Amino acid sequence: MCYEEKTMKSERIYEGKIVNLRIDTVELPDKKYSKREIVEHPGAVGIIPITDDGYMILVKQFRKAVEKVLLEIPAGKIEINEEPKETALRELYEETGYQTDNMEYLFEFYTSPGFSNEKVYMFLAKELYYVGQNVNKDEYIEIEKFKIEDLMDMIERGEINDSKTMIGIYYANMYINQKK
Amino acid sequence: MCYEEKTMKSERIYEGKIVNLRIDTVELPDKKYSKREIVEHPGAVGIIPITDDGYMILVKQFRKAVEKVLLEIPAGKIEINEEPKETALRELYEETGYQTDNMEYLFEFYTSPGFSNEKVYMFLAKELYYVGQNVNKDEYIEIEKFKIEDLMDMIERGEINDSKTMIGIYYANMYINQKK
Repeated sequence: MCYEEKTMKSERIYEGKIVNLRIDTVELPDKKYSKREIVEHPGAVGIIPITDDGYMILVKQFRKAVEKVLLEIPAGKIEINEEPKETALRELYEETGYQTDNMEYLFEFYTSPGFSNEKVYMFLAKELYYVGQNVNKDEYIEIEKFKIEDLMDMIERGEINDSKTMIGIYYANMYINQKK
Repeated sequence: MCYEEKTMKSERIYEGKIVNLRIDTVELPDKKYSKREIVEHPGAVGIIPITDDGYMILVKQFRKAVEKVLLEIPAGKIEINEEPKETALRELYEETGYQTDNMEYLFEFYTSPGFSNEKVYMFLAKELYYVGQNVNKDEYIEIEKFKIEDLMDMIERGEINDSKTMIGIYYANMYINQKK
């Protein structure tokens, strides 16, 4: 049987710009206590942008946490009072310069539920039209277009290393194959 | 052009059991400074366990960070001095009671590179044999077997909400279809 862990104490360690950290003391079924380190995050969106000719648009940026340039689907943090779909439209525009009236919600998932509540709302963006990139002044982002079959090969060869992007590519591959 | 962010200062906020938190001050290309909140994690493995009759074995457990019971692939933190493959064999055994001599490394990915360096090494486990579950005393885990086509439907219906598990199911679905 799955049980729930009752919070006996909650200690706030840090409140930041993007994440907070707290330590919960929980009671286990055997009545013993244990600690849970929890990183709070406001949530994010990921967008799978597919052009009319079947390409997928990805962004390349340096990620300080992993000290690497990663190839990712467009994505971003949900701002206060924003609906996930608004975030998706805003981030797609800011990061890639594309806009659309066809932004479809797909599903949502936790990126790392062992220690964080970060949730990603995933969207499929079709019928894209280009208006021009508009990134925040502290973001340095390049955009690149790929054939979805090439992205599937890149996963296989270990060249895609971001979880939401792998999910996006697998989804796009199914979507394109269903359409054929 | 993608650039790298130079660390000008690094402040350690917290050192814990599973995660550490630090704040890096970085220099941007325009010479301005910005802060990066970084959650350090030792890394983890995820295992895609497929039985000889084509079922996938998942585990169900309460996740305090999201206050929910989640259905996930077997997974766990890499301990000190452990190779990822050893972790995969150990976690598969502890969480599900299955062992194997056929644990194949597939690829690795970051779960949330915007704020954490957590990396998951993914493995495919075949030729499984059951010896009996052996969970840590503070883990309460149930195991459940599923047909892979049913798991694909569950993703579609929003019933799988963990990123590594979605990647594992998409991979297993491709793997099973290639074998047919």
